[in-house]
Amino acid sequence: MTQYLESKSGRITPEMAVVAESEYLEPEFIRAEVAAGRLVIPANKVHLSKRLIPIGIGIELRTKINANLGNSALSSDLNCELAKVQYAIHYGADTVMDLSTGSEIDILRRRIIDEVTVPVGTVPLYQVCESLEDITDMTSSDFLNAVEHQAEQGVDYMTIHAALLREHIRYVDDRLTGIVSRGGSLTAKWMVAHNRENPFYEHFDELCEIMRAYDVCWSIGDGLRPGCLHDASDAAQFAELEVMGKLAERARRLGCQVMIEGPGHIPFDQIEMNVRRQIEICRGTPFYVLGPVVCDIAPGYDHITSAIGATMAAFHGAAMLCYVTPKEHLGLPDMEDVRAGVIAYKIAAHAADVARHRPNARERDDEMAKARFNFNWDEQFRLSLDPDKASEYYNKSREQVELNCNKSDGGTEKYCTMCGPKFCAMRTTHDLQRLQELETGKDK
Amino acid sequence: MTQYLESKSGRITPEMAVVAESEYLEPEFIRAEVAAGRLVIPANKVHLSKRLIPIGIGIELRTKINANLGNSALSSDLNCELAKVQYAIHYGADTVMDLSTGSEIDILRRRIIDEVTVPVGTVPLYQVCESLEDITDMTSSDFLNAVEHQAEQGVDYMTIHAALLREHIRYVDDRLTGIVSRGGSLTAKWMVAHNRENPFYEHFDELCEIMRAYDVCWSIGDGLRPGCLHDASDAAQFAELEVMGKLAERARRLGCQVMIEGPGHIPFDQIEMNVRRQIEICRGTPFYVLGPVVCDIAPGYDHITSAIGATMAAFHGAAMLCYVTPKEHLGLPDMEDVRAGVIAYKIAAHAADVARHRPNARERDDEMAKARFNFNWDEQFRLSLDPDKASEYYNKSREQVELNCNKSDGGTEKYCTMCGPKFCAMRTTHDLQRLQELETGKDK
Repeated sequence: MTQYLESKSGRITPEMAVVAESEYLEPEFIRAEVAAGRLVIPANKVHLSKRLIPIGIGIELRTKINANLGNSALSSDLNCELAKVQYAIHYGADTVMDLSTGSEIDILRRRIIDEVTVPVGTVPLYQVCESLEDITDMTSSDFLNAVEHQAEQGVDYMTIHAALLREHIRYVDDRLTGIVSRGGSLTAKWMVAHNRENPFYEHFDELCEIMRAYDVCWSIGDGLRPGCLHDASDAAQFAELEVMGKLAERARRLGCQVMIEGPGHIPFDQIEMNVRRQIEICRGTPFYVLGPVVCDIAPGYDHITSAIGATMAAFHGAAMLCYVTPKEHLGLPDMEDVRAGVIAYKIAAHAADVARHRPNARERDDEMAKARFNFNWDEQFRLSLDPDKASEYYNKSREQVELNCNKSDGGTEKYCTMCGPKFCAMRTTHDLQRLQELETGKDK
Repeated sequence: MTQYLESKSGRITPEMAVVAESEYLEPEFIRAEVAAGRLVIPANKVHLSKRLIPIGIGIELRTKINANLGNSALSSDLNCELAKVQYAIHYGADTVMDLSTGSEIDILRRRIIDEVTVPVGTVPLYQVCESLEDITDMTSSDFLNAVEHQAEQGVDYMTIHAALLREHIRYVDDRLTGIVSRGGSLTAKWMVAHNRENPFYEHFDELCEIMRAYDVCWSIGDGLRPGCLHDASDAAQFAELEVMGKLAERARRLGCQVMIEGPGHIPFDQIEMNVRRQIEICRGTPFYVLGPVVCDIAPGYDHITSAIGATMAAFHGAAMLCYVTPKEHLGLPDMEDVRAGVIAYKIAAHAADVARHRPNARERDDEMAKARFNFNWDEQFRLSLDPDKASEYYNKSREQVELNCNKSDGGTEKYCTMCGPKFCAMRTTHDLQRLQELETGKDK
C-alpha cells in the first residue's frame, strides 16, 4: 500500500501524522490532501525502515526546498559529495537529489540513503546513460532494471521524463537554447535515433508497478523546460505539460504518488500564469520548480536570479523549490555554493510561506524583530537562517567598532554596528520613549 | 528654471534629450512625464557644470538602482569610501547616496561630486547632527544652512523627512521595532523634546526655494518606514504617506522635482498593495524604495531578501531601488559587499524591466542565450552583469575539468563545465539536430 492508496481507503498513516504535526495541521486534512493528489509524502518503504523522517510536499503546506548534488565525470569524489549533502541538510534542505553522472554512482547513492533523514531523489536515466557507450544503445529493460534497482535501494522519488513525446520535438526548432534538460535531451536523442515514441511513456504502467511496490513518488520531469527567457512559455513547454497532466492522473489510478517538475527560465511577469496553468492542467499535483531564473545575464549569481522567481512561484502555489547555486551555468557547486544556494532558497520558501500566511510562519520574524529592538545579538544569531554567517559579519564589524570608538559609551550593546550610537535609530527610539514617559510623568 | 518648470513651459531641455536617447523613448514623451511629476532628472546645476551625465527616474523608464555609501563614526576612511563609490558605479549603480555620519563629511562629499558622473544624493540632517552635541540642539537655521551648503556643493537630490508629523509618533507604540529610519528617529526626538511640529514640514516652502534655485530634487524621506514584517503597512507608515502625497504636490507647485521614499520591510504579499497605494496617493511621483526585504530572519543575506522584494516593487511600478548589502543590520559594507549589493539590484531592476517589457530590455538576455547555445564563453562573460565573477567561476571549473578528463574529446569548448560531454543537454541538442538533418536528407 502506498501513502496514496492508504489515504484513498481513509486511513491516516503514521507518516501523515508526522507531517500533520510538523505543519501545524490536522491529520485528517493531510489525509484528504494526499487522497486528492495535492500532497505527496515521498517515503520509500526501504528508506522508511532506515532513518527517514517523512515530510509532506503540497500546495497547502510550508514550501519545501531541494538541493541537487552529485558528482560528474569531470569533478568531485565520493566523500566530498557526501559532505556537501550533509552541509545542504545542515542549512535546511528538505530533500536532496543525487544527480551523479560520474563513477561510483551506486556506492554514493547507497551511502546517501543510509545516512540522511530527508527524502532522496534521483534521475535513473543518468545511471543508465553512464553505463552505456551512447544513450541510443539503451533498451527498455535497461531502464526498467535501473528504476527497480534504485527503488530497492530506497530512493524516495524519481525524475523520469515520460511526458516528452516524439511529436513535441519539432517545437524545439523555434528555440534559442534547444533542450536544456539533460534527461530530456537524452530521451529526445533516443527517440530520433530509433524513430520511436518515448520509452518511458510507452512503459509508463510497468514503471508505475515498480514505483507502487516501494512507494517511490513520481517526479515527472519537464524535458522541455525553457533554458532562456526567450523560450519560456512556448509550444514545446506547454505541449509537454498537457501530457504531464494526463500521466499524473494515470499514475494515481495505478496507486502512485506524483509530483510535476517545472521550469526553468521564466520572465517574472509569466510566473503566475505558469503556476496557475500547471495547477489547472495537473489538478493540484504538487509542482516542483527549478528556480525559475528571471534573467539570463547574471551567471555567478543565479542563486539570486532564481530565488526571485522561486519566491513568486511559491507565492502562487509551487510546493517545492529546487535550489540553484551561484555556479549554475558555469560548473558544479562546491561547499560554499551549496550553502549559498540552500540559504537563498530557505529565504524564498520562507518569504512565500509568510506571504501565504502558513500557520506560524511569521513567528520567527517577529522574534527577530524583538531581538533587534532589544540589541540582543545572541538571540538574533540564534533566529537566523545562517547563524554562522550573521555572527561572522557582526563580529567583524564589532572589531572595527572597538578599534574606532570610545567604549565608555556602553560598548556595542546598545546601538547597532552600522550606525554608531549617535545615529542608531533604535537607540534614538528608546531615547524618545524615555522622553515621552517623562512627559507623561510631568502631566500627572 | 528647474527641469520641472522647463517641462511645464513646454521646453525639452538637453537633459531630457539625453534621457530620451538612453531610454529609447521620444523626447516629447520624457518632457510630458516630467511635467506630470512622474519623472525626475536629478541634476543640480553645479554638478551639471562638472561631469554629471543626466538620468531619468520614473515609472515609464528603466528601473534605476542606488547604492548607499559613506562612513560612520565607527569605521572607514575617506579614500576607502571613495573607492567603494567608484566600485558601485563600475558595477552599475545609477546613483549614489553619500550617507556619511563620520568625520570629514564635507571633504568626502565634495570629492564624490567632483569625481562621479552619476547623480549624488544626501541626507543633510546627518551633517547637522554630526556637528551638534545632540540633535535636540538643532535650530531651523542650522538645517536650512546645511541644505543650502550642500546644494551649493552640487548635491543632486536630498532626503528630508518632512512628512513625519508630531501626531504620527503615537502610532509607533504598536510597533516591534519603533522608528528605524535614522533621519526619522532624530526628527521625532527633536519634536518630542521641543514639543513642536516637524521643523522640515514647517519650513517646507523655504526648503523648496533652495532646492529650486539649484534644481535639487526632493526625496521625501519615509521616517516611519517599517523595520520588520510585523510593522509593515501600519497606521504610522500610511499616515506619513498621506502627508508625502500633499508635500509632493506642494513642492511641484513651488517648481521643484520630487521623489518619494518607500519601505523597508514588507511581506511579499503586501508589496503590490504598497506600490499601488503610493502611486495613487502621490499621483505617480517616482517611488524610490529601500528593498523591501521580505523576511527578517536572514541577516548576512539581506541583499537577497531585499532583491526579491525590490523585483516585486519595480514590477508594480517603483522607479528606483535602493540597494541593500549583505552587511545590512550587521555593519557597514566593504568593497565586496558593495559589489554583491549592486549586482543583486541590477538583477532585480533588469528582471522587472524585462517583465514590464521596457524597450530593448530583453535583447541582452537573448544574446546570452545564443552565446550559451554556441558555447561561446567569452561572449557570455561580456554579456554578464559581472563578467569578472562569471569568468572566475568558469575558469575554476575548467581547471578541474582539465585535470579530470581526457582533453582529446575537444576540450571544454563544446560542452558545459557542469555536466561534461556525455550529459551536456545543449551538446545533445546539437547531436539531435544533426540526426534530424540526416533524416531529412534521407527523405529527400
